Amino acid sequence: MTDPLPAESLIAAVDAGHSAQTRFLAEFVAIPSRRFAEGPAQDFIADALRARGYDVDDWRLDLADLEPLPGFGPIEVKGAGDFSGARSVVGTHRPRGPVKGRSLILQGHLDVVPEGPVEMWSTPPYTPEIRDGWMHGRGAGDMKAGTVAALFALDAIHAAGYEPAARVHFQSVIEEEATGLGALSTLQRGYRADLCVIPEPSNLSVNRAQIGVVWFKLRVRGRPTHVATAGEGSNAITAAFHLVEALQELEADWNARAAQDPVYGDVPHPLNLNVGKIAGGDWASSVPAWCDIDCRMGLLPGWSLEACKAEIVARIDAASRDHAFLSNNPPDVIWNGFQAEGYVLGADAQPGLDTLHAALRDVQGGDAPLPEHKMTALTDTRFYGLYYGIPAFCFGPHAQNIHGFDERVDLDSVARVTRVLALLIARWCGLNRLEG
Amino acid sequence: MTDPLPAESLIAAVDAGHSAQTRFLAEFVAIPSRRFAEGPAQDFIADALRARGYDVDDWRLDLADLEPLPGFGPIEVKGAGDFSGARSVVGTHRPRGPVKGRSLILQGHLDVVPEGPVEMWSTPPYTPEIRDGWMHGRGAGDMKAGTVAALFALDAIHAAGYEPAARVHFQSVIEEEATGLGALSTLQRGYRADLCVIPEPSNLSVNRAQIGVVWFKLRVRGRPTHVATAGEGSNAITAAFHLVEALQELEADWNARAAQDPVYGDVPHPLNLNVGKIAGGDWASSVPAWCDIDCRMGLLPGWSLEACKAEIVARIDAASRDHAFLSNNPPDVIWNGFQAEGYVLGADAQPGLDTLHAALRDVQGGDAPLPEHKMTALTDTRFYGLYYGIPAFCFGPHAQNIHGFDERVDLDSVARVTRVLALLIARWCGLNRLEG
Repeated sequence: MTDPLPAESLIAAVDAGHSAQTRFLAEFVAIPSRRFAEGPAQDFIADALRARGYDVDDWRLDLADLEPLPGFGPIEVKGAGDFSGARSVVGTHRPRGPVKGRSLILQGHLDVVPEGPVEMWSTPPYTPEIRDGWMHGRGAGDMKAGTVAALFALDAIHAAGYEPAARVHFQSVIEEEATGLGALSTLQRGYRADLCVIPEPSNLSVNRAQIGVVWFKLRVRGRPTHVATAGEGSNAITAAFHLVEALQELEADWNARAAQDPVYGDVPHPLNLNVGKIAGGDWASSVPAWCDIDCRMGLLPGWSLEACKAEIVARIDAASRDHAFLSNNPPDVIWNGFQAEGYVLGADAQPGLDTLHAALRDVQGGDAPLPEHKMTALTDTRFYGLYYGIPAFCFGPHAQNIHGFDERVDLDSVARVTRVLALLIARWCGLNRLEG
Repeated sequence: MTDPLPAESLIAAVDAGHSAQTRFLAEFVAIPSRRFAEGPAQDFIADALRARGYDVDDWRLDLADLEPLPGFGPIEVKGAGDFSGARSVVGTHRPRGPVKGRSLILQGHLDVVPEGPVEMWSTPPYTPEIRDGWMHGRGAGDMKAGTVAALFALDAIHAAGYEPAARVHFQSVIEEEATGLGALSTLQRGYRADLCVIPEPSNLSVNRAQIGVVWFKLRVRGRPTHVATAGEGSNAITAAFHLVEALQELEADWNARAAQDPVYGDVPHPLNLNVGKIAGGDWASSVPAWCDIDCRMGLLPGWSLEACKAEIVARIDAASRDHAFLSNNPPDVIWNGFQAEGYVLGADAQPGLDTLHAALRDVQGGDAPLPEHKMTALTDTRFYGLYYGIPAFCFGPHAQNIHGFDERVDLDSVARVTRVLALLIARWCGLNRLEG
């Protein structure tokens, strides 16, 4: 930066846009962008990017392009057409004036996790409602508010009479909640930058580290009998329970191992097994012949994904060998989503973190250290940092109940994040004053 | 019986009809008469009864008529219209000649349990196939072969030149596999007789006793959290597992009690808990907020249904009190199907049993005692015997894998049962020779 940073005018421009930003967010949250149904939400973002003059790339994902890439997670589709409409949208800013700074990717995912039984929500999940300064709705926190903050941070720079003096890719992706294939597709497509910032909800803190995650389905099948002789039969549901118990032992063992980890040693129980979904049997009075359980398990950064998967399979095999039914009907373990390694920020992230820290001080004053945390979940940052040499971290607003009922985001935190992102962009990319 | 019994000509007439009977059975098995979709199968039987000249009563069930009656089991319907097409069909024979014998109900149910994953069948479940003398198909054994045997036993009497010399109700019912409301509806409608015989698959043996059964759904609901903090959250699926463990303890306790029972003391493990169906959660990486488990539990004859249900609820309550999540989110226990007491044949059944025994000797010769057994499942006989003073028992062909894959019925046993039923009808009702 050779020019002095117009911090006050950028902050003023962000604040001037706050009401419009909140209305835009509400419109975005109202679109139920569940998996395999993200199309209208991607249209919403693509339209917004086009209206702002970005160079918009809007393409369909092709699994054949992605499968060879590191970090690929398999898609389990119910119908052949489920994934055929999957799209990524990238709006690119290339400076009209001289390139003075470093390039930047700002990425948001718009896929949301299922809302669950609607009756457990205080207000309907896709009817965003503001109460006590919080906007409620599925995806409001995770992570539509962050995506919109990035978009309006860029708007504020323009409204203040500037443009980023380096390339900026505003990337809207899907599949963050299941495989990460949306983020991976932007890298496959060739988008690169010197830094990637993802405004996932983080309560204005940076994720120094994140865990890896694998998804798998336990598929139990066996021959049932009449319920009158259930004792002779093979109950696929209770057999599946037996496998879950074996995985709970694995979870305990892995967390004991994690207590010795240099990064995660101070995080209590960082690795969580989640038995997230179950379906089995057809009839109360028929011994069930089938049961499927969808599981999620965490692993630490630096742990080999392949070794962890082999350990999961070994535990399932051992639990099956000592079980009358499973020993004759070994279950399948199907890897059907995240195949994600953990990720810890390296030294190459320091310039980006320093810039974020400076932007945070621009907005909040003081000289507190940059707040940071270690996540017990994962984000799309891993693809950038692990496989493409692009340092990537998250910094976003304050949200609650993500993946739960009454998910909500603190709108005041959204305003603060938007200010910080505007300053981060200005500091990282530099600014060109726009000619009237 | 004043006339000598024309046993040989009746048996010859049965055997002459065997090929037609097998073809008729295959057509019947080919109709997938699953719950709430029994209409075409009832049409098939009603048409067959009309073609034979029976007086056919074909009516829709009205739950309001049935709810006040003893033994009623609640219907859990997914859609409001599920039960609206439920029908019973009764074809009545009233003798043209003098009434000389005792009246008889012959009843079959045509509802079948779900076939489960089709790929686990050797041949498609509704494409009946005969291999090595067995007809394979869902419902072939339970109990379409028995129903058809009764129909063709009556046909053989006519083909031999006779009619039953007493009233015979041929009753085709539904819901035997879930509530018994079809059988109950015939009693509500007013059908009565001196004996009821149900040709359920029994390998030519009589069920001296049958257990009671209750169905219930455990409905677990609770607030989930992000999977990153699954430890804090409340996993409805694993909470449901905890409840199943409590029910397994109840099952063990009840079977210990059953070992002292005067009727069932010699039957190993007569009372089976079946966890028949489970569904919970929406997403591998969301802590599940809900889980439903459909259970079936047996109870002994003479045990109070209400006391058993209270004991189930007490066990669920106790298991919930010691569980962090369930104590704050007590599960619901929903009684949603069988509410059936056990039934043991009384002295009033002896004339019917003696007649069956005589018919069996007519067909098979010898002087072996009437084969009998104690069931660890239930049949519709309970409604007749317990609540309407009509002795009722089952006697039917040899079937395997009922409620399982590759269900099948031994066609030779079907032929033998048809002969015995023809002789049973002749002996119980008496015969009038038909005028040419």
